Parts: sequence; C-alpha cells; structure tokens
Amino acid sequence: MELGVGGSNPPCCTKTMVKEKKLKPSKELPLGFVDRKEQELLIRDFIISNIKEVMIKYGFQYLETPSFEYTDSIGKFLPDKERPEEGVFSFKDEKKWLSLRYDLTAPLARYVAKNYLELPKPFKRYQLGTVWRNEKPGPGRFREFLQFDADYVGTKNLQADAELCVLISEILEKCGLDKSDYTVKISSRKFTDKLFEQLKIKSKDQISTTLRVLDKIDRLGWGEAKKLLGEGRKDKSGDYTKGANLKSDQIKIIENALKIKTPDSEDILEIVKIFQAYKFENYKFDPSVIRGLEYYTGPIFEVNLNFEVKNSKGQAIQFGSIGGGGRYDNLVSNFGNFDCPATGISVGLDRLVFALMQKKDFKIKAVRPVIICVFDKSRMKEYIEILNKLRISNIGSEIYPGEGKLKKQMEYANKISSPAAILYGDNEIKIGKVTLKNLKSGKETSVAIESLSDEIKKII
Amino acid sequence: MELGVGGSNPPCCTKTMVKEKKLKPSKELPLGFVDRKEQELLIRDFIISNIKEVMIKYGFQYLETPSFEYTDSIGKFLPDKERPEEGVFSFKDEKKWLSLRYDLTAPLARYVAKNYLELPKPFKRYQLGTVWRNEKPGPGRFREFLQFDADYVGTKNLQADAELCVLISEILEKCGLDKSDYTVKISSRKFTDKLFEQLKIKSKDQISTTLRVLDKIDRLGWGEAKKLLGEGRKDKSGDYTKGANLKSDQIKIIENALKIKTPDSEDILEIVKIFQAYKFENYKFDPSVIRGLEYYTGPIFEVNLNFEVKNSKGQAIQFGSIGGGGRYDNLVSNFGNFDCPATGISVGLDRLVFALMQKKDFKIKAVRPVIICVFDKSRMKEYIEILNKLRISNIGSEIYPGEGKLKKQMEYANKISSPAAILYGDNEIKIGKVTLKNLKSGKETSVAIESLSDEIKKII
Repeated sequence: MELGVGGSNPPCCTKTMVKEKKLKPSKELPLGFVDRKEQELLIRDFIISNIKEVMIKYGFQYLETPSFEYTDSIGKFLPDKERPEEGVFSFKDEKKWLSLRYDLTAPLARYVAKNYLELPKPFKRYQLGTVWRNEKPGPGRFREFLQFDADYVGTKNLQADAELCVLISEILEKCGLDKSDYTVKISSRKFTDKLFEQLKIKSKDQISTTLRVLDKIDRLGWGEAKKLLGEGRKDKSGDYTKGANLKSDQIKIIENALKIKTPDSEDILEIVKIFQAYKFENYKFDPSVIRGLEYYTGPIFEVNLNFEVKNSKGQAIQFGSIGGGGRYDNLVSNFGNFDCPATGISVGLDRLVFALMQKKDFKIKAVRPVIICVFDKSRMKEYIEILNKLRISNIGSEIYPGEGKLKKQMEYANKISSPAAILYGDNEIKIGKVTLKNLKSGKETSVAIESLSDEIKKII
Repeated sequence: MELGVGGSNPPCCTKTMVKEKKLKPSKELPLGFVDRKEQELLIRDFIISNIKEVMIKYGFQYLETPSFEYTDSIGKFLPDKERPEEGVFSFKDEKKWLSLRYDLTAPLARYVAKNYLELPKPFKRYQLGTVWRNEKPGPGRFREFLQFDADYVGTKNLQADAELCVLISEILEKCGLDKSDYTVKISSRKFTDKLFEQLKIKSKDQISTTLRVLDKIDRLGWGEAKKLLGEGRKDKSGDYTKGANLKSDQIKIIENALKIKTPDSEDILEIVKIFQAYKFENYKFDPSVIRGLEYYTGPIFEVNLNFEVKNSKGQAIQFGSIGGGGRYDNLVSNFGNFDCPATGISVGLDRLVFALMQKKDFKIKAVRPVIICVFDKSRMKEYIEILNKLRISNIGSEIYPGEGKLKKQMEYANKISSPAAILYGDNEIKIGKVTLKNLKSGKETSVAIESLSDEIKKII
C-alpha cells in the first residue's frame, strides 16, 4: 500500500499487477455499459420532472427499494434462455445469494409483502431506478437501464389497468410527443391462454418458447417467426435457434389468431369501455403483444413509437417498444397467504430519451459559465470579488480554474462554449471597469462592475 | 415455468423450491440495504435540486458513468481491512472481472483517461449516483449509498480545492443549515507525510495501520486510539484489534502533532488565503482529518455537522462526517503517460437527508389525492368526467381505485391522508352538484361541478 506517499503509483498497481508491471488498467467500459453526457442527462431530468408531476396528479406515492434483493425474493422471471442462470447479476453473501434487481416489479412485490398490514389497499406507488440484466454482451445490448414504474397493488379493478395506459400517454405528450407519435397496444394473457387451449399444447417448455417467438414477430417479421414456431431458424450470423416444434396446422391457428382485430376477451372489452369514458383513443388491440416477463396474468400493454429512430450511424433501426406492463395477480401472494392482485407499467427511460432526442428539438441547453480571466495571481482577491457578485446574481461563472496564460484561458473558454469572458487586467483595474468579451460575437465592451451582472444577462 | 397460466404459483417457486415446497421466499432485505419512503425521497429531491443549481452556478458539467467498471480500472483503494478482497461487489464476466463502483472518483479517472483528448482542461464535472461497499454486514452498516461528487480534473491550482469547500458550504446553507450547523475541516497528506518522516517509519503496513487509527480518533477518543497505535485494543464486544506497534515516544510525537492549531504545510496556507478572499470562514484546520480512501495526495477536507443527530431509537449518535474529499494527483495518470492532477469532494446524500430531517422542519409535504367515491360502477363515465376536470386543473385526484363499499373507501381516504372526498351519488346527480367533504374538518358542502376545482384549491 502506498498510503500518503505522494509521488508513486496508486496501490492497485502495486497489489494486483505485480507480474505485469507496465500494463495499465483498462480505460474501456465493460460491454453493455455506457457513459452519459450532459445534454442527455438534462433531457432525462426534464422527462423525470414530467413523470413526477403526472404521478402526483394521479395520486401515486413515491417509493425506492434498494438495488439488491435476496435472490430467492425476486425469483427468476427473465425470458433470456441463452443464459438461463445468468439473467441476473448475483453475488454470494455470508449465507445467502443476493441479486441486483432486474426490474422494479419483483422488489415491489417483496416490499408489499413485507409491509402488507401498514399499506393502504390499493397501494399506488411509483419508482425511478436502475435495473440490471446480465445479458450475453453484444452490440447494442445494454446491461443497465433506468426505469420508471407505476403500479396499483391490491386491486382487481380494471380501471387501474386502463388508467396506466392513460397516464403513460399523458407523460409522453407532456414530454413533447403528438398523439400520432405513439400507440398503446393492448392484449391479454387470457387471449394467449385461450390460444394454447386451442393449440392443445401443455408442455411448459413449448408454451414458453412459443410465447417468446410471438414476442419477436415485430422484430423478425412473420416469415422468420414462422420458422421458429416450427423446427427452428438460422439467423444472419449463421447461428441456429431451435424452434417450438409446432405442426403446420398449429402454426395456422396462430396465424389466424394474430389477425383478430377486435378483442374477444372480457378484460380487454372492459378496458376499452373505460378508455372511452376517458376519451382516450390512442390505443390498438394487438394479439402479438406478449411482453417478455413471465409473471403477467391478465391484460398486458406495450407503448410503441411510430416515428423513425436512427442509430448513431444514422441508420433507421427497429426501435421496438419504450415500455409496457400488465396485470400480475400472483406475484405478491407468492410471499404469503394473502390475495394481492396488481397491475403496473414500466418505461425504459434511456430508450425514451434516445428516441425523444431525435424527435424533438429540445430547448434545454446546458448553462456554461462566464470565465473571469486570470492576469496576475496576486489579483485573485479582486477576481473573487467579481465572481461573488456574479454568483449572487445567479450567473454561472468561474475564475479560469487552470494554470495557463491568457491564450490558453481563451482556448478553454471556447472549449467549454463559455458565453463571455471577463478581462480585468492592470488597465481595467486602473479605470475601475472590466472588459466584457462576448465570445459569440467577439465584441468587447467596457463595463462598470456594478452593472456587470445586468450586461451579462443581456448576452447569455 | 408457468407462463400464461393464470391461477397457479409463479415460476420461481416451481423452479427453485421444489424440495421445500411450502417455504415462501424471504420478505426481508439483505443486511445493509433499506427501502426509502416518500417523505425522505422528497427531501432528497429538494437537496438534489439545490445541488444542481449550485453546480450550474459554479460552472460544472453533469456526467454519469455506469454502475459497473472493469475491476482493474477502478482498483482497490478501500480501507476495509476486515475483508480485503471483498470491499467491492465483483462479478466474473466472460473473461474479465467487473465491479460495482465503490465511489464516483475512480470511474471519473477512467472516464477522463478514456476521453482525455476531447475534454476541456481543467474538466469540472459533477455526478449523482449510487455506490456500493461490500462491507461485512452489521447493524447500521449500509452497503449502498447515494453520493454527490464534484471534481476539478487537470489542474494543480489550489483555488480548485478551496472552491470545493466553498461550494459545499453554499449547498448546505441552501438546504437550510446555518453556519453554526457545520464545519469544513481541512488538513493535508503533506502533513501526515511529514509526520511519518518524523516517526521514522517506512513500513507500508505500519503507515496504513497508523493512518486508519488517526482516522478513528473522532469516534474512539484519544485514549482508545492510543492503544491501537501501540500493541492493540480489545473493543466492547471483546474483539481484539492488533495495533500499529508504535513505541511510546512515537505515539507522543503523534499526540503533539495533533495539537497543532495552525497549519504548517504550504498547500493549506495557500488555501486559507483563498478562503479569506472568498470571505469563507466556516473552516477549521484539523490534523486528525485523514479520509479513508488511499488515493489522496495533497489537501484533504471533511464536512462535519455540529448538531446532535439521533438514531431511530432516539439516542444521540456519533454521526461523523457527511462528506469530504481531497486532492488525488496520481489517479488519472495511472491509466497512461499523462500528468493529470485532480481534486474533488463527495457528499453522502442519504446521511445528509437523515441529518437534515432532524434539524430542519421541512415544509415539503407529499401531495395526497382527492378521492372521488364510487357509488355505482355504471356511473363510471360521470366520475371520470369529474376526474378529468380536476386533473386539468392540476389537482392530485383519483377515483377510488379499489373494489369496496363507501365505508371502505373512506377508510382508504383516511389511510392515504387524502384532503377531501367527492361524493356524487344519485341525489347529487339529480341536482347536478357534488358533495365535497373536507376530510380534515369533516365539513360537507354542496358544490357545482364548474366551481369544484376552485373549492378544492381552497382546502388543500
């Protein structure tokens, strides 16, 4: 350990890298993780503040559960078959296994079970938080997501399900989307249950493989999905995926079922009636809506964007949904002997931000500070006096924080897109005025210190 | 797997609990993790919005790095000796090890190294994010923390260090603390370096043990700390901790050094001069300030609260600092051949919220919705019309979301502390007015639907 010794390598080198002394640690991030910069974060903050406003208006309570849960508390509901035991990040603790949450719903079920007696019923809560999926790393596959969830726990009332679709629409429109920009698709597990009855398949494996294929139709198209319902399919990379092994008459039944345009399950019919009362029209019944997570028991919904989204290379991409949810009537009762039906919706905020940044010309811009240039370190007291005046007027400002000459200071000001520089050299001090340089126009004006804040406010 | 099958147990039971069929999953959280409720979260939001305002005013950029990093990128700088290999949560990926960040500084160093050429120098960034410490679980020991960090990267300029102390003070006062409520303590690694020269000890183990003891003086008192500087100490539980094995004349040197009231290291003297220019007086030189993390190289600071903080049992507790930081001139250069001095400060937001909730009577209160009672499900359309009117007026409101009779609905309204209930039964519909019940006073008034929003605004 190199504690307190100023000049040498930090301890990680001496400890873990003895054998490979010249190897530097990696500057890269593990696959599936990203750094996020200011513009994205500011837009995310804007979305989050809209979410909070709508949540208050709809009467939801704010809750936060921790990142970790006991592994057995949150179960394994992930659809990722490729790494069946690795869908979550798990850590062995003293005695038991801990996992990072893979969604906000399973932890909510645990929270409700733990606090069942104290909670109002129904319990309406919202949460914002990171979730993790230990997916097989690959391009465009993220392993960390910021999610927003709203849930009604302790009610079978389908008005709850309907209102989730209404509130997510209100949030999206508050964020700047038009009605034509998105659609809420609805279906029901009852619909797929009925379908499986018709198909006469009971094998759990076959059922879950079939559901996964249905979930992928959007992405693959019916032609490719059909192969996966049958024997299997070779993808572009040459990888072969085994199919659900359904017979052609069974596949035909599915094909027909997917064409149904009007809902035939009771729950959906009731929700549609409630939508009408809300004058909410921006939904569509779509039997191919499946949702990956396995705990759903009734109505399910998915929010899709209708405008084109491009990747970082400018290519239009299959964007998929930005969120969805559904009814999960058995998740909470799993913890004890009480009946606790529930329904909820989740939105992937990173995806929503990504899409919104392409759709909307946000006026949200980072505030960059005005730079007070340093001519002479012995004049620091004078510079700080000016700085304090600007900051009291709530003007983003700083004394050049580095150690360079004026040229370097102006380069820095340009680099951070500073709106203005304040020059207070010997000449200026002599006449008791500063030179204010507008860094957009290049124009310089001589300004009395008392009116400096007002002059700056005119140009930022 | 129980996919799509409405009535039976969710898959986690069938899969992981075959042998112990009647065992329910745990409702408890792993030790060191907590659920956070609305009041705490609202106060945290208030603090965060103050932080963001101050950060903009001081010219910092907003950044977010992910939770996971390659283990070798963030190193092992944690002081936790009890579980030397377990201070972090680590996870074996395909080939390399990943770790959850234990602070926001090591990931910043990685970020700067990765983006070195593009970044302004100095680079001033702030970040808000969760960090994890895989400490030995125990009462009052948390393993997940929300942190705020502000850093200057790429400058040796001590004005940066000074300004960190000024800005944290501004944040605390914006959050409602008085000057007398907190103190910024400062010291320097240069001070301890000099001390170790005087002590003539060079063994890294002895140095790091000694530093850890100095760091604990606040908590243990000098009498107990002295034992740890010598042979060792048995704590209240009977556990024996080996000491630094210093001789009594060495311990005497330390005792005298700790009594120094005026700084004698150059860096601290310069910082004090800058404080004077800022008219910042709320600091104290304190040579016992050590800071646990091992990457510091120069000035270090710690923010201490001066008021009494009580635990959940109402007992006054040794609260310690709410944050601190210091200069770490070698952390970034560890990644490559460039010189990149830096300094930064961290604040533990959960701790700050905990303390502030005791100090300040926050006026921040959760908004609870007005309840529209359900008399007759066939009247849902009328209820929804009223609801839409209220929500357009931005009034938190909901139709009773459960399935009970009026008595149950009023119990629910009480449970969630709803300010008012709206009764719109047959009688009301007949006369075209609603009954508005103030749930604080119990008073009922008959109100025309057009003026309902205005009447409600008078009582919430």
